[in-house]
Amino acid sequence: MHPKELTGIMLFHEEERGREFLEKITGKKPVFVCVIGTTDTAKIPGISAAGKTPELTEYTPAADVELLILGRCKCIDTVPVTPEGIPTPAIITLSALRLAHIPVLVVDAGARIKPQVPFISLGGFPGKDIRSGSAVVNVEEVFLKAKVLGEQLSMIADYLVVGESIPGGTTTALAVLLALGVNARGKVSSSMPHNPHDLKIRVVEQALKAAGVSFGQLGNNPLKAISLVGDPVMPAFAGIVVGAAKRIPVLMAGGTQMCAILKIVKELDESVVENIAIGTTRWIVHDKTSDIKGLVEQIADVPILAANIDFSKSRFDGLRAYERGAVKEGVGAGGAVISAIAKTRGGITVDDVVREVEKNYELLLKRGQI
Amino acid sequence: MHPKELTGIMLFHEEERGREFLEKITGKKPVFVCVIGTTDTAKIPGISAAGKTPELTEYTPAADVELLILGRCKCIDTVPVTPEGIPTPAIITLSALRLAHIPVLVVDAGARIKPQVPFISLGGFPGKDIRSGSAVVNVEEVFLKAKVLGEQLSMIADYLVVGESIPGGTTTALAVLLALGVNARGKVSSSMPHNPHDLKIRVVEQALKAAGVSFGQLGNNPLKAISLVGDPVMPAFAGIVVGAAKRIPVLMAGGTQMCAILKIVKELDESVVENIAIGTTRWIVHDKTSDIKGLVEQIADVPILAANIDFSKSRFDGLRAYERGAVKEGVGAGGAVISAIAKTRGGITVDDVVREVEKNYELLLKRGQI
Repeated sequence: MHPKELTGIMLFHEEERGREFLEKITGKKPVFVCVIGTTDTAKIPGISAAGKTPELTEYTPAADVELLILGRCKCIDTVPVTPEGIPTPAIITLSALRLAHIPVLVVDAGARIKPQVPFISLGGFPGKDIRSGSAVVNVEEVFLKAKVLGEQLSMIADYLVVGESIPGGTTTALAVLLALGVNARGKVSSSMPHNPHDLKIRVVEQALKAAGVSFGQLGNNPLKAISLVGDPVMPAFAGIVVGAAKRIPVLMAGGTQMCAILKIVKELDESVVENIAIGTTRWIVHDKTSDIKGLVEQIADVPILAANIDFSKSRFDGLRAYERGAVKEGVGAGGAVISAIAKTRGGITVDDVVREVEKNYELLLKRGQI
Repeated sequence: MHPKELTGIMLFHEEERGREFLEKITGKKPVFVCVIGTTDTAKIPGISAAGKTPELTEYTPAADVELLILGRCKCIDTVPVTPEGIPTPAIITLSALRLAHIPVLVVDAGARIKPQVPFISLGGFPGKDIRSGSAVVNVEEVFLKAKVLGEQLSMIADYLVVGESIPGGTTTALAVLLALGVNARGKVSSSMPHNPHDLKIRVVEQALKAAGVSFGQLGNNPLKAISLVGDPVMPAFAGIVVGAAKRIPVLMAGGTQMCAILKIVKELDESVVENIAIGTTRWIVHDKTSDIKGLVEQIADVPILAANIDFSKSRFDGLRAYERGAVKEGVGAGGAVISAIAKTRGGITVDDVVREVEKNYELLLKRGQI
């Protein structure tokens, strides 16, 4: 097969490497890993849209993975929604993974609310408000355990797709990127149509000041940067990538947060970077309020693949809203779609995924979960 | 290949089915799952040899899986030993799995001491002393989560090998077998050369009396039997088997405890039994103080496979002691050896495993871990 046949997957950056990565994973069997965590940073009003209210962001990661595993949420009555009522991208992830029979493992990196499904514990804790300048505890322990997990998973799967659910994740990503010397101002994305860059930068500047860290000061100490101004998903996600990508390809599934993970991974073990791609959505790569390419270019020559998913013709306003800039990505949605297409050598198309999303959306509506 | 070529694996019971099971798994890629838990039952003096002292039995499961994943224990300074100083069968499991590059996942069903490695949480708690007649909490929740886990794992692996580490496990097995109507008196094995049947029966009779349960009274309610007189590993182990064996073969790796699991599984979903075999050691099937065949015959026509492993010529007294009836089985040792042989189509032999065990034993001795 020639990966050109895999329509529905956009080669957005480092096209040749992206093509090679797709060749490596086409027809292969992935495991989808979803890393979850929560922070008090997400409870700052206006920072996160991953929850109806700032307080409800604590339930979003647990509810997201319950949806992936069970097809419904248990810790809350409805699926997670934005303040405007737009439902979680986990519906996309669920639909893609189920269509392609891709198994899911949940990793708890430090979620305040634990999901009512089996999850892998790494001994992490919820993150504090980064404005404290002291955001995450036992970062090294979580990283080392996650690395061990990644090594085990690299013996199990042909390749990994790693996604995340942590509200406020682009703000902590911005803080860590700046601490590590990546010019990320105005470049990270948002789950809101109007990206609140000013608020994010204000919070991040307070955080860096409280931590006593200037731009690029922690360039060679990413675990320290996480502990000061990051979030608990970062050491877990990076550890899994470092542990697994020594042996198998890893698709890091997410938006601009993946740039923070990529920078952390590169600083900790540059040798694995060649086995990594970022998998995201069309909504991220076409987003005018952020610049994922401009971030990746500063870090490593890693390809960006994007699922060319389009909800503009959807029957449901809650899905059409994605075309107006709501949500955009999360819970590894883009990467899940890419891996569903690749696993089936294009047997599953983006249109199939959209139809399945509509079907699941309707089912959840009927059950009162949306 | 003809499974006769797989020397080193004894077909001990239901030979034809055993041969068929081996054919199904030969050359295939397993995942080894180790389910851990602790109970206060194990702290009754004389019940368990899975720890230097009754109190230390609480560290044994965590230390066992640390050894499997890391090659050394972290929560205690040395590997778990019996009161006589004979080291844990996890050394056998470790050696077999590493030789054959078989990945390990740890499931915490309710261990008081948590291992310093990634583990899958099912929300379980340590078991109480069964003499209370109220041994395990949230049995149904753990079973249902474990079933979901088994379903996910059945999409990941060609087949599962499931082992356990829970001190006192044969005593709780005896109690549950009696509650479910299997005549198990004098038939369960022990990690001690002199099987303390009298003590076990006394404890179990107290437990059944406290729970108000007579022989066979809970025959169709295994989860109730577990909650009254069982242990936390049971619902987790049974749930994984029920969830996975719908799609893939499952080798239940252990000694006579596996008979309790088999009975629980059969009562909950008889349809999966045809996809199950018990994998154990020569020391169990040749044990004169117990009767695994006599137990299995009462439950289902499931094959028993046994690793023909022999330490009689070992340099180390701690291994030769296995030939005198110490330890016998545990941490899925027999099943791990069987799966190492089967995965490599006999490329790895029992002798290779014995040599690897000696090598690891020596390494651990040098490091002061034995």
